[in-house]
Amino acid sequence: MEIHAAQDGRPTTGEADAGLSLPVEPRPLATPEEAWRIAKSLNYRHIEGTVVAVAQDVETGEILMVGHMDPVAVVLTLTTGLAHYYSTSRRRIWLKGETSGHLQIVREFRTDCDGDAVVIKVFQIGAACHLGTRSCFTSPNSFHVKL
Amino acid sequence: MEIHAAQDGRPTTGEADAGLSLPVEPRPLATPEEAWRIAKSLNYRHIEGTVVAVAQDVETGEILMVGHMDPVAVVLTLTTGLAHYYSTSRRRIWLKGETSGHLQIVREFRTDCDGDAVVIKVFQIGAACHLGTRSCFTSPNSFHVKL
Repeated sequence: MEIHAAQDGRPTTGEADAGLSLPVEPRPLATPEEAWRIAKSLNYRHIEGTVVAVAQDVETGEILMVGHMDPVAVVLTLTTGLAHYYSTSRRRIWLKGETSGHLQIVREFRTDCDGDAVVIKVFQIGAACHLGTRSCFTSPNSFHVKL
Repeated sequence: MEIHAAQDGRPTTGEADAGLSLPVEPRPLATPEEAWRIAKSLNYRHIEGTVVAVAQDVETGEILMVGHMDPVAVVLTLTTGLAHYYSTSRRRIWLKGETSGHLQIVREFRTDCDGDAVVIKVFQIGAACHLGTRSCFTSPNSFHVKL
């Protein structure tokens, strides 16, 4: 293996430089043809032409966040195995974790009976919430009422 | 116990007539004052002035359905312990199970970091999906892709 010297003098591998040391491997869930067939079948009736997308921890079942997907986000999620959403505020596709590194590695994808919502089951790297908690539903801003 | 004769001649109890034999008791999660405080804190930025509402099985963690709530649906859910949604197609509040009897008895209610989504954990009576499956994400219309 070729060894590089990082700018701080610490020796690193090419792999570590590329930031690719993930605990599980992202793998495609569908071919591009299959992914487009699923994407075309959905009903993008939510804001900005999207479906609701719910991310659930594949190991614990905890609901991590609720976002939106447009057709391209659906296809990118299925063909890369990395969760992509459509930001209704920034009006663009985003790869979850693109700046934070907090990727979601997708293992399962389901659509609902009327095709306007999807559930993805994911390995969450780090925190799902931008406020630093694992789930957006356990953030410091959240209300929680339980019997 | 008083015994009534149903119209088909089958003897039934008054309790069964009223359709009140539930396996668990619905109980309020909040006072009206607390419920309105929570409802007022949310950001109803989704279609028809709603938040997204995800119903999750309190026992298994399975995601049962995705719906919407307006402020009144939030308050009714919290004060009755029975899931209420806002139908964006019929443009009215609905008590889940009002015609089917497939009520959702709510045990936990959480809001997310930016106040535009809620998760409720419920005991689901019968099927959550109008197509007869327990979850809308396992309906005959659903796509399911899994690694």
